[in-house]
Amino acid sequence: MRRRALITGLAVMAAAQSVGMPSFGQTDPLPSWNEGQAKQSILEFVARVTMTGSRDFVPVAERIATFDNDGTLWVEQPMYVQVVFAMERVKAMAPQHPEWTTREPFKSILADDRAALAAMGENGLLEIIAATHADLTTAEFAKTVSEWIATARHPRFNRLYTDLVYQPMLELMALLRAHGFKTFIVSGGGVEFMRPWTERVYGIPPEQVVGSSGVTKFVKRPTGEPVLLKEPKVEFVDDGPGKAVGINRFIGRRPILAFGNSDGDQQMLEWTAAGAGARFMGLVHHTDAVREYAYDRSSPVGRLDKAWDEAVQRKWAVASMKADWKVIFPFELQ
Amino acid sequence: MRRRALITGLAVMAAAQSVGMPSFGQTDPLPSWNEGQAKQSILEFVARVTMTGSRDFVPVAERIATFDNDGTLWVEQPMYVQVVFAMERVKAMAPQHPEWTTREPFKSILADDRAALAAMGENGLLEIIAATHADLTTAEFAKTVSEWIATARHPRFNRLYTDLVYQPMLELMALLRAHGFKTFIVSGGGVEFMRPWTERVYGIPPEQVVGSSGVTKFVKRPTGEPVLLKEPKVEFVDDGPGKAVGINRFIGRRPILAFGNSDGDQQMLEWTAAGAGARFMGLVHHTDAVREYAYDRSSPVGRLDKAWDEAVQRKWAVASMKADWKVIFPFELQ
Repeated sequence: MRRRALITGLAVMAAAQSVGMPSFGQTDPLPSWNEGQAKQSILEFVARVTMTGSRDFVPVAERIATFDNDGTLWVEQPMYVQVVFAMERVKAMAPQHPEWTTREPFKSILADDRAALAAMGENGLLEIIAATHADLTTAEFAKTVSEWIATARHPRFNRLYTDLVYQPMLELMALLRAHGFKTFIVSGGGVEFMRPWTERVYGIPPEQVVGSSGVTKFVKRPTGEPVLLKEPKVEFVDDGPGKAVGINRFIGRRPILAFGNSDGDQQMLEWTAAGAGARFMGLVHHTDAVREYAYDRSSPVGRLDKAWDEAVQRKWAVASMKADWKVIFPFELQ
Repeated sequence: MRRRALITGLAVMAAAQSVGMPSFGQTDPLPSWNEGQAKQSILEFVARVTMTGSRDFVPVAERIATFDNDGTLWVEQPMYVQVVFAMERVKAMAPQHPEWTTREPFKSILADDRAALAAMGENGLLEIIAATHADLTTAEFAKTVSEWIATARHPRFNRLYTDLVYQPMLELMALLRAHGFKTFIVSGGGVEFMRPWTERVYGIPPEQVVGSSGVTKFVKRPTGEPVLLKEPKVEFVDDGPGKAVGINRFIGRRPILAFGNSDGDQQMLEWTAAGAGARFMGLVHHTDAVREYAYDRSSPVGRLDKAWDEAVQRKWAVASMKADWKVIFPFELQ
């Protein structure tokens, strides 16, 4: 199916090239994107790197696309989803840990000090995750995540968090995959918090999810069963410069397209931009307080400041939610 | 092409099932394997997990197969190829490092003390690699590897190391991929030593290579160009228990088939075996001193002792080079 779609797409594009416009057939591959510079630049890039005979043609094996998760593929306000998860874990475990009432960061969580938690960032979150999930096996942790994500609801939208993914980005990832790209998540969030649901929600399998992680240890149970135990120690923070490091470590190939939304994505975009040949660097700009949220330079969560300046200076694509996206969430289409 | 081969294969197998034997059409998919228990167990397993309607059917997305590299996919005697590479790097750099003549492990290398080096194992190798490649960028290191591997020759066979890969294992990996498997390398060797050539030699892309690694650091050159600098520090040893940890960290999904050849693969095989449903665990046993090498329990390189006992006890497949392989290397077919 993919191969056939690809061939059809190429034929359509070849025909379109004669009139100097990228086209993807009768069906708009990005129906939730308004006509404009962001959409146009995406379509032009995909045509340039996938059209046979194009000067910028990139072989299928090298079509690597990386996406940040929080704020790029799903909602990250009023706080990172994984912070909410960690808070609820702390509350559930608090009866067994009386010492937490006087010890940070548990104290802030138990006191519902959301301002302190929102400002803590993903590194602080990782400390909490590490502390609250030590001595669980990786399988037990995955089960805990799966159960939580199937029921927890966003405080404003009263929807499952997995309903609060961005429809235009789902369309972009589907377009890329239909043209031979491998799509990866490269997120500051915990890799084991994402893998249980990314395949179902984004079509991204576990082996294409790069994220932060804690130390795990191979242990044999008394029954002889081998398990991986999560230890209370952060192993890798896949954020900022760590995203370039993580891309090299986990993927081993430089992306030709990368999309983020915050300063934590700046080095991933720079690393992508520094490769030879055609490149696409994109930012989601949260500009729609009515349908989602509006925030950038001064937000403690998902701050977009230095990366925005660089995007403007280097003419990277910026997708404004308000101006560029017809719909934000998939449920708006139902 | 892959999809068509898959469908054809399934139809053939469905027909074959009625006579109780797995069959893969007129063409033997494993022509370099002698008829016998090892070959039979592979073909039966592939049929069981891929045939529609089979009780042990595994969806394509979950068909993960992991292979050790040294001694499983290519020759590891008389010493690991990467040890040879490291030795030659040390010699090339020695004029700039007079202190190495009195400092281990450089002293042994410069003195050509092969016994000491062969016994050092992959952990020791990683220390040498870290020390000799610090301050190279990842791109510079990849170039060094590519240039070396294109010219260096094995002392006994006088062939490029990439010619000394095992034809029967190439056929096994091709069979698996034709049936929807994703094939991964999970090796104690350095990930950046393997990635420059695994796609060309094994058909395994960089993002499906898991290995040991050193710390890298994101740095901006004075020109503004971002690079990843290799630091003289081991980050992760993907060997023994580390192979189960590495599979979880890099793939995030448990293999249903794993193949190794030494005690360093024992935990990868145990981790694979511990999953639910049909599983295949295999060992290459080096039994052919004439065509390759014969070694197991007492070899300092690629020791096969505890894993062999476990394989016998748990009835894992053991492929004897002498008995099961018609040819060892691809050049024998030319």
